[in-house]
Amino acid sequence: MAEQKKMVEAITPMEEDFAQWYTDIVKKAELMDYSSVRGCMVIEPYGYAIWENITHFLDARFKELGHENVSMPLFIPESLLQKEKDHVEGFAPEVAWVTMGGSEKLEERLCVRPTSETLFCDHYARVIHSWRDLPKLYNQWCSVVRWEKTTRPFLRSVEFHWQEGHTMHETAEEAMQETEQMLRVYADFCEQQLAIPVVKGRKTDKEKFAGAEATYTIEAMMHDGKALQSGTSHYFGDGFARAFNVTFQGRDNKPQYPHQTSWGMSTRIIGGIIMTHGDDNGLVLPPAIAPIQVVVLPIAQHKPGVLDKAAELRDRLKKSFRVKLDDSEQSPGWKFAQYEMKGVPLRLEIGPKDIEKNQCVLVRRTDREKIFVSLDNLEEAIQEQLSIVRQQMFDKALARRESMTYEARTLDEMIDIAANKPGLIKAMWCGDEACEQKLKDDAGVSSRCIPFEQEQLSDVCVCCGKPAKSMVYWGKAY
Amino acid sequence: MAEQKKMVEAITPMEEDFAQWYTDIVKKAELMDYSSVRGCMVIEPYGYAIWENITHFLDARFKELGHENVSMPLFIPESLLQKEKDHVEGFAPEVAWVTMGGSEKLEERLCVRPTSETLFCDHYARVIHSWRDLPKLYNQWCSVVRWEKTTRPFLRSVEFHWQEGHTMHETAEEAMQETEQMLRVYADFCEQQLAIPVVKGRKTDKEKFAGAEATYTIEAMMHDGKALQSGTSHYFGDGFARAFNVTFQGRDNKPQYPHQTSWGMSTRIIGGIIMTHGDDNGLVLPPAIAPIQVVVLPIAQHKPGVLDKAAELRDRLKKSFRVKLDDSEQSPGWKFAQYEMKGVPLRLEIGPKDIEKNQCVLVRRTDREKIFVSLDNLEEAIQEQLSIVRQQMFDKALARRESMTYEARTLDEMIDIAANKPGLIKAMWCGDEACEQKLKDDAGVSSRCIPFEQEQLSDVCVCCGKPAKSMVYWGKAY
Repeated sequence: MAEQKKMVEAITPMEEDFAQWYTDIVKKAELMDYSSVRGCMVIEPYGYAIWENITHFLDARFKELGHENVSMPLFIPESLLQKEKDHVEGFAPEVAWVTMGGSEKLEERLCVRPTSETLFCDHYARVIHSWRDLPKLYNQWCSVVRWEKTTRPFLRSVEFHWQEGHTMHETAEEAMQETEQMLRVYADFCEQQLAIPVVKGRKTDKEKFAGAEATYTIEAMMHDGKALQSGTSHYFGDGFARAFNVTFQGRDNKPQYPHQTSWGMSTRIIGGIIMTHGDDNGLVLPPAIAPIQVVVLPIAQHKPGVLDKAAELRDRLKKSFRVKLDDSEQSPGWKFAQYEMKGVPLRLEIGPKDIEKNQCVLVRRTDREKIFVSLDNLEEAIQEQLSIVRQQMFDKALARRESMTYEARTLDEMIDIAANKPGLIKAMWCGDEACEQKLKDDAGVSSRCIPFEQEQLSDVCVCCGKPAKSMVYWGKAY
Repeated sequence: MAEQKKMVEAITPMEEDFAQWYTDIVKKAELMDYSSVRGCMVIEPYGYAIWENITHFLDARFKELGHENVSMPLFIPESLLQKEKDHVEGFAPEVAWVTMGGSEKLEERLCVRPTSETLFCDHYARVIHSWRDLPKLYNQWCSVVRWEKTTRPFLRSVEFHWQEGHTMHETAEEAMQETEQMLRVYADFCEQQLAIPVVKGRKTDKEKFAGAEATYTIEAMMHDGKALQSGTSHYFGDGFARAFNVTFQGRDNKPQYPHQTSWGMSTRIIGGIIMTHGDDNGLVLPPAIAPIQVVVLPIAQHKPGVLDKAAELRDRLKKSFRVKLDDSEQSPGWKFAQYEMKGVPLRLEIGPKDIEKNQCVLVRRTDREKIFVSLDNLEEAIQEQLSIVRQQMFDKALARRESMTYEARTLDEMIDIAANKPGLIKAMWCGDEACEQKLKDDAGVSSRCIPFEQEQLSDVCVCCGKPAKSMVYWGKAY
């Protein structure tokens, strides 16, 4: 009903102003609203439904792999945060501090959790005693707070939602396997469910998580050629375990430290979906997480029988799909634009002539292709078209990433590409942080990851010319 | 595996020390762990799974009734909290204040939300313009913080999980209907799913929510006769709307204020489940929310074929129930005690003789009744037994509540009952807050609710002897 008074306003074209295009979409597709709290947003029903669909899928996958959900406190006492040196250095500058409870000043400040390794370790120290207590495979769905200076809806906000898995293992090997397994879970989810191709790899020491021995990442490329870190998993070795005195009696009856991982994916991925798939008509949503997979639009709805048939189809289809019927008084043209803006993968048009012929029209959001299908096997036809939409989205994103990925063999080449061609740059690296810093300073790119799939582009570092250790993806990032 | 080294320790008997009995259960059934953060707990996997089952049921019910989930910020700027006078007076003394972001002092303090009426109103003021935008039926699943001095696991904690529904309506009637509807949703959930009988009623002005015109409540009685407020819904009229300047253009084209409700149920209800149904052997969980509905226990499991058959039954039953097979090396006796402690509604025993006879044994947690059932129609048998368990739990709780509910007609009688008989006391009330306060001071009881189902116990107030307006439930409460 609310839509009756609204116009479907055009959004700023992507080519004209990408940042404004993004902002227009998040507002006009009603994903979020700005709040009166600096850097914190209101996630509106349509945006939150996307997040719910993401959580349902991931939660089921985590549980299949043996993980259990728990809830840790929202606050971390300052002394607890300080127990692991690298971790506190990384996070303390960007946390919100609670200093008062009611009208009383607290004896010890509490930070609002920016991440919960310290809380999990504190708990694990109390409940892990023997090798029989391992592994502990815990996950938590919550929001965390990082006191960011500049924020953007979904991409970077003071408060954001995520899941954080925290596991403890008997051996380093097991923990490393878990770290890699969870990265693959994220990569598969992005590629299969979200139709976002990703590069899997390892972060350099400079870019890794505060306190981790190794950080793995999946990196996606946005429309504007910038990279988005879309999910990470960390291997901690026994560093936190030592700092928090988490020990267990091993199979040899001797005390040992367990080996730890953590891994997370956040509402940031919604920004990734928008900037991977969206176009100048609005959102384009992957069918697996679209709040509305099929919108049923009656044509010439004042004609007898049309609304009844449309409602009948809605009732029939909702057994198999997330479906919405829009029988409002708006024109079909308005509705077409509205549900394109909302990124609905398929629209189903049904009018008097279709009813006569026992058919309807399916129109794909991706390419606006119209398909006439019999009502007899409508479910299969929709399922097929949703698969096609997903495949089109993935293929298009992959083709773009490939066309916007470059190779550099010299520093000059790197600087030139970075200045003129948005995208990712593959180049060899010696492994020295000084070169990484120089590329940041001179070319304005950071290392995105050391991909698992290596190529030998040359034998020497793109920066210093010394022998290269690995190929790295470089680029600008969100 | 972890269980192999543990003993199933006895818990303190309820009659000996009810508070210790409660603490023993939450710890020994592994529902929670104390944390290093004052008043905040770790909800462990078994406890969190109960909360997840509660959320899944309620969330589906809310959505059936047209509500949509959203996410509001975690923080409330002080100026926003102060906009509604009664509300800030009620909550400001018990909030946690964020005063620092990183190393900088904030210009304006932020409180960690104790409840989110102010944030919803702030948003509603931006998105509600016309009667066509109404109703807004929003809900949020989150945690909130109240700076409580004394805390107890689940019952009263500094941070707790809940859902908070916040709705805006065109008319007062509609909002009042919503308030009552959501109270019925909570009552039905408690009675049908949790097997907890509740009294539905209205709070007195003294006990109502800060800023509300009317608060409705469901009150349950615990084993020790104390009441537990188990869910509340509030009608705000247009008080917040005026304070936050939320207006809409009515059907008559004139500006109007919308009418508002909010309603919530929290992890506190887990405390209610424990204290309504638990016994000296541990938890007793209602089948609808039990993380394990049926535990499969092999008997003489070293005998050939027993473990295979038990695993086959587990695989078969998990299509219809939440089921766990315990094939660890512990003795059957240990396992019986362990899953009684965990409150599993049904245990399924399968041994060599059972296999020969194509049968198994079902044992109810409630009364330990053994039922021999054929494996041919095992699913129906389990379904039936789970229904019986639920009914037994409800009947027992209701009988206890009835046997522990008293009537008082004079102040002396009230004082005497309150001092000597744990439970609820029905008594007439004139409606005067002075009498309510006197009953608190002299008898140590507070008004629990003015029940919808009224009885005329006498014509005069139990306290002052003036004409009575209504019958009230009085008692001690968590």
